[in-house]
Amino acid sequence: MRNKLNIGLFGFGCVGNGLYEVLNQSNLLDATIKKIVVKNPNKARSIAKENFSYAKSDILLDNEINLVVELIDDSRAAFLIVSEALKRGKHVVTANKKMIAENYEELLNLAKANNLSLLYEASVGGSIPIIRNLEEYYNNDSLSGIQGIVNGTTNYILTQTNSGKDYETALAEAQELGFAESDPTLDVDGFDSKYKLLILIKHAFGLTLKPDDIFNYGIRNIKTQDVKYAAEKGFRIKLFSRTEKFGNHLAGFVAPHFIKEDNVAYNVNNEFNSVSVEALFSDKQLFLGKGAGAYPTASAVLSDVSALQYDYAYEYKKTNENEVLNFTDDFYLKIYIGSEFIEAIQEIPFYNIDEIFQSKAYNFQTGWVKFSELKQFNFNNLSNLFFAVLPEPFLNESDFENIAGEKLFLQVFN
Amino acid sequence: MRNKLNIGLFGFGCVGNGLYEVLNQSNLLDATIKKIVVKNPNKARSIAKENFSYAKSDILLDNEINLVVELIDDSRAAFLIVSEALKRGKHVVTANKKMIAENYEELLNLAKANNLSLLYEASVGGSIPIIRNLEEYYNNDSLSGIQGIVNGTTNYILTQTNSGKDYETALAEAQELGFAESDPTLDVDGFDSKYKLLILIKHAFGLTLKPDDIFNYGIRNIKTQDVKYAAEKGFRIKLFSRTEKFGNHLAGFVAPHFIKEDNVAYNVNNEFNSVSVEALFSDKQLFLGKGAGAYPTASAVLSDVSALQYDYAYEYKKTNENEVLNFTDDFYLKIYIGSEFIEAIQEIPFYNIDEIFQSKAYNFQTGWVKFSELKQFNFNNLSNLFFAVLPEPFLNESDFENIAGEKLFLQVFN
Repeated sequence: MRNKLNIGLFGFGCVGNGLYEVLNQSNLLDATIKKIVVKNPNKARSIAKENFSYAKSDILLDNEINLVVELIDDSRAAFLIVSEALKRGKHVVTANKKMIAENYEELLNLAKANNLSLLYEASVGGSIPIIRNLEEYYNNDSLSGIQGIVNGTTNYILTQTNSGKDYETALAEAQELGFAESDPTLDVDGFDSKYKLLILIKHAFGLTLKPDDIFNYGIRNIKTQDVKYAAEKGFRIKLFSRTEKFGNHLAGFVAPHFIKEDNVAYNVNNEFNSVSVEALFSDKQLFLGKGAGAYPTASAVLSDVSALQYDYAYEYKKTNENEVLNFTDDFYLKIYIGSEFIEAIQEIPFYNIDEIFQSKAYNFQTGWVKFSELKQFNFNNLSNLFFAVLPEPFLNESDFENIAGEKLFLQVFN
Repeated sequence: MRNKLNIGLFGFGCVGNGLYEVLNQSNLLDATIKKIVVKNPNKARSIAKENFSYAKSDILLDNEINLVVELIDDSRAAFLIVSEALKRGKHVVTANKKMIAENYEELLNLAKANNLSLLYEASVGGSIPIIRNLEEYYNNDSLSGIQGIVNGTTNYILTQTNSGKDYETALAEAQELGFAESDPTLDVDGFDSKYKLLILIKHAFGLTLKPDDIFNYGIRNIKTQDVKYAAEKGFRIKLFSRTEKFGNHLAGFVAPHFIKEDNVAYNVNNEFNSVSVEALFSDKQLFLGKGAGAYPTASAVLSDVSALQYDYAYEYKKTNENEVLNFTDDFYLKIYIGSEFIEAIQEIPFYNIDEIFQSKAYNFQTGWVKFSELKQFNFNNLSNLFFAVLPEPFLNESDFENIAGEKLFLQVFN
C-alpha cells in the first residue's frame, strides 16, 4: 500500500533543483512537489517564478502537505523548519548533517512523539546508501568499526596533494571547480566530516553524541614534506571519519590518516566518497560512490521519499539495545608529526617514539600518543605542524604497556 | 512486531556451520535452529551428533518449523527441498545461485502462490548486500548497468596472473588455499558468475532469464602473453558479470574484460567481490566485500533471517513495471583476441580492426565484433585463443556504422 506524498520543498539550490528534475524524470513515485519555498525572490532560477513561495507558513500550514523536504544551507533556519514540520504532523526528509548533528536528540524525540519519520540518507556520503545499510543490513552483525571518506572537497584536495601539488594550489583548484567554498573551513578543518561521523556513530553504534564530543582535525596544515614522507613509505593521506570499538569502549574522531594499499580506501580518489565497514561476520565491506553533486544527492533524497511511501522509519535498533558503549578518549594511537620546527613537535607528548628525523629543512617523528592529550591541542590552528594517524590499532592502557615493553625501542625523551 | 522463527537447516558444510556459530554468537535474533538435516551420518562434524537428522521429512513435516534455510551443494536436491518447503508453508532462505537460476520462474510462482518469502542475499557477492540494495535503494533510480566481480575463485586467480604468474600455477595455488574446487569448471568457465548475473538482472532490470540465455566465457585459456599485452597498455584483466541497458535493449554476459585504473573495479583483488552499479541519478557506485567464506556468507544468510522477522519479501518492482526490456544479442563490442595461431584469430569475424600484431611467438588483434556471432563459438573449449572485452560502449547497428565510418581505420580483411 503506497502513501500518496504531497511534498513541500524548502530550498531550490543545486540539490533542490536536482530533486525537482529527478522527480519529474522518474515516473515511479506517487509523489508531487506541491510547493517550493525559497528565501530570495529575486534570484534567477531554472523554473518559472509561479512555482515559488517565500513564506515558510505556505508549506507548514498547508494541511495537504504530508512531507517536508528540507534542502537549505542554514542549519539554524533548517532546524526551525524541520521541528515545526514535525510538530505539525509532517514527515521530514533532509540532507542537512549540521542541523542533525547539532539537534539530534531533540529531533528524534519530536519525530517519535508525533509518530513521524525523519529520514536523512543524503546527509552522509551523497549517493551511498550507508545509513539504510547500517539500519537494515548490519542490524544483527557485530560492527567493530567504520572508516569513512565522507567529504568530497578534502578528498579531492588530498588526491591532488598526494600526487605532488602543494595544498594551496590544490585548494585553489578545488575552489575553481566548485568543489570548495570560498571559506573552506567547514570542509578543510573536518567539521563537515565530524557531523557525518556523528550520524554514522548513531546508526552503527547507537550513541547520540554532540558535535563538541568529537575531535576534528583537517588537512589545512599539510606540507609537501609530509606527503613526500608518506609517499616514500607507500602511504597515501586520507581524511577519515573514523570510529572503532574496543571492548565496551568506542573511539571516534576526524583526522588525516596515512594508509597503505591494503586499505580498501587507498584508491578512493577525487570527489568520490567511501565508507568502509568492518564487522565480526561480514568482515570488511566498502561502499563507494559520488559523495556530492546535485543528482547523486538528489537520488539519496529520492530514495527516502520513496521509502516513505511504505511508511519507512529508522528504528535505531543499536540505541535500543541494552549493551552500553562508552565513548572514550582514553586510548593510545600511533601518529606521524612533521614540522619545520623541532620545538613544535616536542610540544606534543609522546609515550614511545619509533622514528625521529631532523634536518635543517624539515623534521618528523612517529610514535605513540595518548588521544586524551592529543585532543587538547587545537591542531587546525597550529599551522607549523601536521599530524596524521598511522595504521596501527588503538590500544588501551594495559595493551599499550604490553606493546611498549616488547616492541617499541625508543623511550620518550622530553 | 517480530516473528519468532523456528529454523530447519539443510546442510552443515562451511556456511551452515558458520551460520550456526553466528546465530549463537549474535543474540539479536529471535530465531532458533530447531533441526539440522544432513546427508551423511558418518561425516565428522564440529557439533554433537544429537543435533542432526538424516531425513528431509524431519524438517519438511515439522509444523513448528516456519523457515527452511537451505545450504546444500546439489542444486537439484536443493530445488526439491525448497519447492517442498514452500508448498508446506515455510519461508525459505537459500544461498544456492544455481538452483535459483535454473528454476527462477517456478520458485517465484510457488512463493507467490503460498504468500511466502524466498530470500537469497547470500547467493550473490557473499557478504555484499547487493540484492537488498537493488530491491530497496535503486527502486526509483534508472539503472543503466552493472559490472560484477562475483566469483572469488577467478578473481583470486586473475590477481595472480595479473601480477605475472601463469594460469596453471595460479589455479593450483587457489586449489591449495581452498579457493578453487578440484574440478574448477563452474568457476573458471564462468558458470557460477552467470547464475549470479542472472539473479542481478532479475533484481536490477526485471527480466527472468534462463541460464542458457546468457553467454559465459571464463579465464581458462588466458596466456601470459595476453596478460603482458594488457599490462603494457595499463589494463588489468577481470572477469565481469556484466549487464548494460541501451535504449529498450539489455545486454548481459560473462567474459574477461580489460579494464583501466579509472574503473572502480581495478583494485578489487584476490578473493574480494565487487558490484559496480551505474544509474542515471546516483551515478557510479561500488559495493565491495568478501565474496565467499563461512562467516561472510553466513552473515548474508543471517540478514535474510533477520528480515524475515519483519515479514520482508522481495517485491520485484522492476518486473512489475510496464517498461519491457528486450534481452538482446544484437550489438557490437570491442574485443582483444590473442593466440599463438594467426588462423585461430582469423576464424572470428571482425567488422573493424584497430590493431593487428603478428610474430612467431604470439599474435593478437583488437577491433569490433558482433556479439550475436561471437556467442556462437564455444570459447571455453578453444584453448588456442583468449579474448577479452575492451572498455568501449556497446553499439547498436546504426551507432556502429557511424563510428565505423568516422573513427576506425582498418577494414576487415578476412
